Amino acid sequence: MGKRTNTTLQSAFFSLAEVLPKADAVKYMKDAATKSYLKKGQDVVDMNHKAIDAGADALVKIDVPAEWANPAADPEKAPLEGRAALVTQVKNILLPIDNMDGDSLPVSAFMPHVDGEWELGASAYEKRGVAVNVPEWDSTKCAQCNRCAFVCPHATIRPYLLDEAEMAAAPEGFKAVDHKLSKGAYKYGLAVSPLDCMGCGVCVTVCPTKSLTMKPLEEQLPEQKNFDYAVKNVSVKKDFADNSNVIKSQFKTPLLEFSGSCAGCAETSYARLITQLCGDHTYISNATGCSSIWGGPGATAPYTVNEEGHGPAWCNSLFEDNAEHGLGMRMAVKTRRAKIKADVEELVAAGVPDAVKAAAEAWFAAFDDVEASKKTGEALVEALEEAKIGAEIIARKDLLAEKTVWIFGGDGWAYDIGYGGLDHVLASGENVNVMVFDTEVYSNTGGQASKASNIGQVAQFAAAGKSVEKKSLSQIAMAYGYVYVAQVAMGADPAQTLKAMNEAIAYNGPSLIIGYSPCEMHSIKGGMMNCQMEMKKAVECGYWNLFRFNPALKAEGKNPFTLDSKVPAGGYQDFLKNEARYNRLTRENPERAEKLFAENEAAAMARYNKLVKFVDFYAPAE
Amino acid sequence: MGKRTNTTLQSAFFSLAEVLPKADAVKYMKDAATKSYLKKGQDVVDMNHKAIDAGADALVKIDVPAEWANPAADPEKAPLEGRAALVTQVKNILLPIDNMDGDSLPVSAFMPHVDGEWELGASAYEKRGVAVNVPEWDSTKCAQCNRCAFVCPHATIRPYLLDEAEMAAAPEGFKAVDHKLSKGAYKYGLAVSPLDCMGCGVCVTVCPTKSLTMKPLEEQLPEQKNFDYAVKNVSVKKDFADNSNVIKSQFKTPLLEFSGSCAGCAETSYARLITQLCGDHTYISNATGCSSIWGGPGATAPYTVNEEGHGPAWCNSLFEDNAEHGLGMRMAVKTRRAKIKADVEELVAAGVPDAVKAAAEAWFAAFDDVEASKKTGEALVEALEEAKIGAEIIARKDLLAEKTVWIFGGDGWAYDIGYGGLDHVLASGENVNVMVFDTEVYSNTGGQASKASNIGQVAQFAAAGKSVEKKSLSQIAMAYGYVYVAQVAMGADPAQTLKAMNEAIAYNGPSLIIGYSPCEMHSIKGGMMNCQMEMKKAVECGYWNLFRFNPALKAEGKNPFTLDSKVPAGGYQDFLKNEARYNRLTRENPERAEKLFAENEAAAMARYNKLVKFVDFYAPAE
Repeated sequence: MGKRTNTTLQSAFFSLAEVLPKADAVKYMKDAATKSYLKKGQDVVDMNHKAIDAGADALVKIDVPAEWANPAADPEKAPLEGRAALVTQVKNILLPIDNMDGDSLPVSAFMPHVDGEWELGASAYEKRGVAVNVPEWDSTKCAQCNRCAFVCPHATIRPYLLDEAEMAAAPEGFKAVDHKLSKGAYKYGLAVSPLDCMGCGVCVTVCPTKSLTMKPLEEQLPEQKNFDYAVKNVSVKKDFADNSNVIKSQFKTPLLEFSGSCAGCAETSYARLITQLCGDHTYISNATGCSSIWGGPGATAPYTVNEEGHGPAWCNSLFEDNAEHGLGMRMAVKTRRAKIKADVEELVAAGVPDAVKAAAEAWFAAFDDVEASKKTGEALVEALEEAKIGAEIIARKDLLAEKTVWIFGGDGWAYDIGYGGLDHVLASGENVNVMVFDTEVYSNTGGQASKASNIGQVAQFAAAGKSVEKKSLSQIAMAYGYVYVAQVAMGADPAQTLKAMNEAIAYNGPSLIIGYSPCEMHSIKGGMMNCQMEMKKAVECGYWNLFRFNPALKAEGKNPFTLDSKVPAGGYQDFLKNEARYNRLTRENPERAEKLFAENEAAAMARYNKLVKFVDFYAPAE
Repeated sequence: MGKRTNTTLQSAFFSLAEVLPKADAVKYMKDAATKSYLKKGQDVVDMNHKAIDAGADALVKIDVPAEWANPAADPEKAPLEGRAALVTQVKNILLPIDNMDGDSLPVSAFMPHVDGEWELGASAYEKRGVAVNVPEWDSTKCAQCNRCAFVCPHATIRPYLLDEAEMAAAPEGFKAVDHKLSKGAYKYGLAVSPLDCMGCGVCVTVCPTKSLTMKPLEEQLPEQKNFDYAVKNVSVKKDFADNSNVIKSQFKTPLLEFSGSCAGCAETSYARLITQLCGDHTYISNATGCSSIWGGPGATAPYTVNEEGHGPAWCNSLFEDNAEHGLGMRMAVKTRRAKIKADVEELVAAGVPDAVKAAAEAWFAAFDDVEASKKTGEALVEALEEAKIGAEIIARKDLLAEKTVWIFGGDGWAYDIGYGGLDHVLASGENVNVMVFDTEVYSNTGGQASKASNIGQVAQFAAAGKSVEKKSLSQIAMAYGYVYVAQVAMGADPAQTLKAMNEAIAYNGPSLIIGYSPCEMHSIKGGMMNCQMEMKKAVECGYWNLFRFNPALKAEGKNPFTLDSKVPAGGYQDFLKNEARYNRLTRENPERAEKLFAENEAAAMARYNKLVKFVDFYAPAE
């Protein structure tokens, strides 16, 4: 039964509660398990029956310490650290809810949030400790590739570079080795947060040197203080932390951490990476769906702030208007920045000290550049403060830095319900970046087929297997010619994912990245531990294709289209049959399954051939 | 001022009504005209001032006959002919409204229509007589090509083939000549309805032999009886009336006539042609917009019935759900026909006379074929009636014939507001045909830019000229691979338009035809008389491209993509400047106009080159 505990617990409950005779309860549960799981095979039924027996018989009485009677009092023990507003939010709302005491919260507790605003960074206070096993790092084997951090859905494994002082102040037992790239100038430590880790094990599967091993949570608890120390006390080493490659990207602070997403979730890994690349000058409009649930659960905000106390502005919007909402963010930034620019120009024209003029000119030149406008904007504020002028400009100084606007959502949003708006926003030519978490199914609402679903794919509410091809959202967007488009799968090619994101961010126009996102709903053999490796398999067999279409290259006379996937290597049917979203159809309707799976493969091969042809199609004329 | 009368009439009104001193009124009107039209040039202002003077001074008193005091009594004179329900509708609603007496209608007059249902064919009772000039046919010059009827927006010019008896019974003065294709077996007559004609003159512009001339309405009134005779008494000659070519298509009865669309409208010509090709087994779901206004003005229904008394089922749906509504029509037909098929199978299985069995088998074989299922269905009903069995099947006999489902709408619907749904319906793979009347602007709501609008194009509410490229809806739909897609312009290549429509109808899957539709809002030089010839210019210079993508050919191992447009022949900028929707920008912002028009041309050339590349791209592997 792997990590599944509900059947055992249910059986234990009936055995303990005696709401009906124990023998009857066991019989009913077994009948239900037979009915539910026979289509998954007799072995699954047998395992369930065994679990039911075990739950009913293996009860052990545990005496509960008296002080557990009032868990709400518990967090009062140690005073909470952090920004005042955040601590208030955590104390007054997050902790009572986590203590199952949400019903008793007075309306007044929510008064600071009547406008829907929540403090970032609250998820760090949860420390759920729900993993059975968490990774242990063997520093001697580690290649320092940072792949583990790159894929971690919950940002609970992070590499740090420590200077001498930081090493000296580190808690006893803080593991670190010479940092290879700086030739030992820094020490390299890989910190794990046992209490935040969900225990998915994805990091273990991607580690090329097998330097990570899953160990029982209890054993690893001492690592928590090391993780906390690194987060709080180790600075970002800017010479080794930037967007240029996978390793360096992981030395940047993730601004999404400890969300409530499923263990192994692919979506959060993409989103976390984006926060690392774009930092605190990021606006995110998020369609309703899984990503709005793990991304914005009110008081428990998993988006967080950097060492300067700034984080992304995140907002949830409806399925049907999220792209438009994100465009609105962009238009607001554009309009308000145009105004502050006009104000600075007016101020300068009226006569200002040379230092201010120079600072303003540097800022004008950097106006459209995210990083440079931030730096030159800060310098401009300093110059204005020095000269004691431009108070109205200083009051709006957040607008001096250009922003990166992202629009997040799942395939149900992007391919289906929100697609009309997404198309409209892409067509607008405005500078927004769209990230689609493509799980190929409506995950959050229990499993309906979307236009991203594939031939023969079964979902809870599409039991016969879909009969039409997956929509090619990427090819449709490419038809515009001025939309940056990429398909990525971070587990298959981390560098390609990073490259696509960087290109999308750099492109001064609409960008669309579609990220393959295996999901609990796929029922991958071996569970979500294999999420990232399943992406690799998907790309290798041609189920999912990697490519980038960059209009900026067209302007340079280059081919805008780059096919990053290799020729499919075979094993297509094995790939399909490795996931219950497909092999369930084989059990239920083998003939139809065979027909649809063959069609699925044929469509995939035709799709790949089309992509190969696109290389020539988009090649510039000689 | 051409046919524009409103300025003259307004001036006459102020002169007559004396609501303010005449001199003041003239001055205010002239000032307003200067303000409104100076951007169109001083000559336009001068013409308006002249018209204002003329209106104020050229009043002539006309004595009104006493019997005009009660126009409502007028139609009572001659009893109305036609189906009882239709006559009731015309008498009780249409005529009172046409007589400006709609306000006095009691609620009870609408009781037969509480479900939104209206009788087809009411527009024939209006006989508005609004044209100043109508075409006169010179039978000696005529080549019998039927181009005039092919393009007529109001179905007021129609070719007929008459046998001897029909000729003998024709009114005196009924013009007819030997029918060339039947070598004189029939007489060929071209009937014009002066009272239904809008006087657009489009027929005159497309006539290759100049056999049509515009003549004052009053002179041509005697032709009305000839037209009425032909409509009522001349049968369709089936050996010369089919969908195989332009000439034959026009001997089929149009099931859309005398609508209230603008004179010269391109949309109605496409729609009329579709009713000729698909006949009475047609369902139409129509998005709100111009086509729902001219297509479904309640009591004045311009969709009509054939000689058997059957016509298309037409329904208006919302901008945002019209495609889905049309899909619903298809799913209803599909489901209900599957049921009747099962019922016939059951009946046959239970044992029936040989004649019924044979008829049923013929019908089974023809089940998916629109024409054949109709014929074999009729034979089946006969056999069942003969055998006195299958009463429940006979009661649903309309379902025996397969239906053609069309989804109509403008570019505002298809490219913008209804696009999310349109995409979903095309993706479904179901057998629906979509006709987009592409006017490149929201025509019916006063002029907003749509995603179909082009670079530099000005609209009432997009005065600066659009800055982004026209969306390629056709290329987007082609991305699916299983959607039939065509771009047509009936004035440029009538045979290509016909071919595309026939292929779309024949394709057992979703089809999308985008028809270029010049519009009053374009302000084409010379007016809407030039509508069809403007399509020709658009295609010749590369502004609009003709092509077809037929997935059925792929299945046959052939190239599904056919480019029907020739290499652009130059004159692109002249084309743009021939329409005020473009040249207005030149007057208002010449620099921007020059820049955007150059971009428009560059985009068009790139688009054409892309289409040329598609020929290779879609070519089957050797």
